[in-house]
Amino acid sequence: MDDILYGSIAQIAAQIRKGEISPVELIEGTLEVIDRYEPQLNAFITVFHDESLERARQAEAEIRNGNDLSPLHGLPIALKDIIYVEGTQSTAGSNFFSHESPQFDAALVSKLRDAGAIIIGKTNLHEFAFGVTTENPHFGATANPWDTSRVPGGSSGGSAAAVVAGCCAGALGSDTGGSIRIPAAVCGHVGLKPTFGRISVHGVLELAQSLDTVGPMCRYVHDVALMMNTLAGYDPRDVHSEDQPAPNYTEGLNGPVRGFRAGIPKQHFFDDLDPEVERTVLAAIKTLEELGVEIIELNLPAAEAGHEVTIKLLMAEAGQFHEERLAAHRENYGVDVRELLEEGLSLSAADYIKTIRAREIVKREFVQAFEKVDCILSPTAPVPAPLRTTHDLSGGSESNRIRPRLTRNTRLINLLGLPSISVPCGFAQVEASNSDEGLPVGLQISGPWWSEKTLLHIAHAYERATSWHTVNVKRCIE
Amino acid sequence: MDDILYGSIAQIAAQIRKGEISPVELIEGTLEVIDRYEPQLNAFITVFHDESLERARQAEAEIRNGNDLSPLHGLPIALKDIIYVEGTQSTAGSNFFSHESPQFDAALVSKLRDAGAIIIGKTNLHEFAFGVTTENPHFGATANPWDTSRVPGGSSGGSAAAVVAGCCAGALGSDTGGSIRIPAAVCGHVGLKPTFGRISVHGVLELAQSLDTVGPMCRYVHDVALMMNTLAGYDPRDVHSEDQPAPNYTEGLNGPVRGFRAGIPKQHFFDDLDPEVERTVLAAIKTLEELGVEIIELNLPAAEAGHEVTIKLLMAEAGQFHEERLAAHRENYGVDVRELLEEGLSLSAADYIKTIRAREIVKREFVQAFEKVDCILSPTAPVPAPLRTTHDLSGGSESNRIRPRLTRNTRLINLLGLPSISVPCGFAQVEASNSDEGLPVGLQISGPWWSEKTLLHIAHAYERATSWHTVNVKRCIE
Repeated sequence: MDDILYGSIAQIAAQIRKGEISPVELIEGTLEVIDRYEPQLNAFITVFHDESLERARQAEAEIRNGNDLSPLHGLPIALKDIIYVEGTQSTAGSNFFSHESPQFDAALVSKLRDAGAIIIGKTNLHEFAFGVTTENPHFGATANPWDTSRVPGGSSGGSAAAVVAGCCAGALGSDTGGSIRIPAAVCGHVGLKPTFGRISVHGVLELAQSLDTVGPMCRYVHDVALMMNTLAGYDPRDVHSEDQPAPNYTEGLNGPVRGFRAGIPKQHFFDDLDPEVERTVLAAIKTLEELGVEIIELNLPAAEAGHEVTIKLLMAEAGQFHEERLAAHRENYGVDVRELLEEGLSLSAADYIKTIRAREIVKREFVQAFEKVDCILSPTAPVPAPLRTTHDLSGGSESNRIRPRLTRNTRLINLLGLPSISVPCGFAQVEASNSDEGLPVGLQISGPWWSEKTLLHIAHAYERATSWHTVNVKRCIE
Repeated sequence: MDDILYGSIAQIAAQIRKGEISPVELIEGTLEVIDRYEPQLNAFITVFHDESLERARQAEAEIRNGNDLSPLHGLPIALKDIIYVEGTQSTAGSNFFSHESPQFDAALVSKLRDAGAIIIGKTNLHEFAFGVTTENPHFGATANPWDTSRVPGGSSGGSAAAVVAGCCAGALGSDTGGSIRIPAAVCGHVGLKPTFGRISVHGVLELAQSLDTVGPMCRYVHDVALMMNTLAGYDPRDVHSEDQPAPNYTEGLNGPVRGFRAGIPKQHFFDDLDPEVERTVLAAIKTLEELGVEIIELNLPAAEAGHEVTIKLLMAEAGQFHEERLAAHRENYGVDVRELLEEGLSLSAADYIKTIRAREIVKREFVQAFEKVDCILSPTAPVPAPLRTTHDLSGGSESNRIRPRLTRNTRLINLLGLPSISVPCGFAQVEASNSDEGLPVGLQISGPWWSEKTLLHIAHAYERATSWHTVNVKRCIE
């Protein structure tokens, strides 16, 4: 059973159709894994035991009767608890919404249900998805399955832990400054932040309106491509959704990558790296080069300035969204999130306009860069998963130091609205680690707007050429 | 000679090539007209007498030698004094820059020069292009040539007065909230505000970075199309310039308009109209209907809210641009502009973000509207040219009342970055007017992004079907 649970979506779907496992057995097995690890991981805020089993019985009957909806039919998918499910507590990591439930499904929930997926539970996250390291003051910390003394990254840490620990076949996260890619990197799975406007955020509680995206978090690149086939598309209810054609993301995924051009930025993205992360990522770049990808040094002088303004933009937009709630219920906020929101609310229109202007300049630079390259390679996070003990609720100096460092390669991508995938690329050997394998490292592959298919293609070629994804995560946590 | 000076660009160009007038005679005649009317109009801040004659001699030789650059070759073009000309005072209507000159030409100046145009002078404007009614505190008021006791509209009022009084074959203005279209409407000529990003603003002093556009102001629609052929195009030096193909704007301009769909907004655009403006514009709509344009009632419930936020956005962006200069030299600013900038600087990031959010909602509404119609018709300005005496420098109540009213149909178009043309559509009979014909009224035709060619096409059909453009402006001022 465990072998099945850690398989890819396509493998599990095939095994269901071959009769090797039924959807009910799959969901029972998944719930058992959740129950087994939840005391150590705290990855979930809500688990749908009975409803999932009921839906599994339904899926079993549907598939048997030839009403086969998609490869996701009958598979357990976990959702970051910032995504609305009708009639179900959706906390966004805050206790504001503990006693009320959304009256509608998020757009992506409807799409997953139409594809036959089973929402197995709602995962833990940072308060209002605003953070990468500190613990959630209302729902506690999620542990990194590779080393439970370490953080799973944020803010979609619950989804990441659930994915690698086999508590779901795939999960959804949100990414406003790196919140899909950082957990994917430090927990060792694949996470895709799509182009801004590619997947509807209708029914996803807002963090920062010009940066927010949602995307799939899975164990395998092919799984992410499969999820994209279900999730991508235009939605007029999301004001930022764009009416761009959505390709078939799995088609041609196995093709060669010879001739693709990958840029290595001279500035910003390779600064201040943990030496083990550096070693691992350079080896990954070498592997891609051996696969025929042309490696090109890239000049991005404005990247650093873009990185600096993104946090201001994020604080200002989050502050605006929370303005009234914060004024009325200041005490309900954790201290670190409150401080960030208050800093955002203290900014002037002129401060904000300066961030918009900087964004335009960096954007122009990236537009020119993407005339030369098909993607940009970098470490996803410059360090492996930090220890939980260094990150306390008081927003102390270690926390303040590690937050900008952890997001330094991801948040600029949000500023520009670019798509970006993090794919496991090996393990950092860290002295204090409880993990025999070491701690996972992620390779970030970012591309021009609407280039998700190219990024998946390159990530898939890398994944096939290496064996990082075959590591049995389950062993680490037991 | 006067008949020639008030002709269209194509007519003057043809007369030059037929030997009926030489570029030198044309420039001499134009300088004479400028000198004749300038005491009454005050349309210019700088006139290039000697340099224009020198360039006219050069153009004459070039055309004689078969080096024929374009229909603009040898023709006098006036520039709003916010547009940089290398080595020449470019005041932007302020005394800050009276003693320094830009070290480079604006992008559009280079394009005009490449087309052989002669920059005849720099026209008067509101201080920093921020205003529509009050007088410029540094360079005095420009008069409306139809009735010199009235304002020419702003902020490109000098360009508008120069165009209708025959002081140039065409002019350039800038339009951030209506500054091309309002003067065009109340002075009785054609003015085009292009799509945001269509004509480079490189070398045009900024007013509000997400709203600024520059565009042609001419006596005839065909002239505007000709100027667009020279001016439209991508410029990487302008961060908002977009790499969109520029069509040939004069090609097919005479085609029929049967089958075009024109929207008449139910909300906002026809509210609070002067009855004479209403009568005139409704007659113009009737004319278009008789030409075969389908008239469709349009629901735009968010238009009013969009209009309301535009001024905040404009104040905030202008405030940011002037922040340091205002702090250092507050006394150099006129009182009304200073008040607007200080109000902009008092806004918070959250205030500004709310305007951006409102923009997104209105934008979505217009995207949907443009699925139903090819253009939107409205009065350009809801009133004819106001009297100068009602608008004083102290920013009194009459001034405060008239500013939002004058811009109520134009500034929302800037918020959305849409192209929009104002074309003369008759005369309002106003009791206190010194003009026998009455005061000019403009029909505003606005379309989806990059639809300038369609707007020119419709405006041209209307112009041919009516005779408003044949009124001899010169008579009014003498």
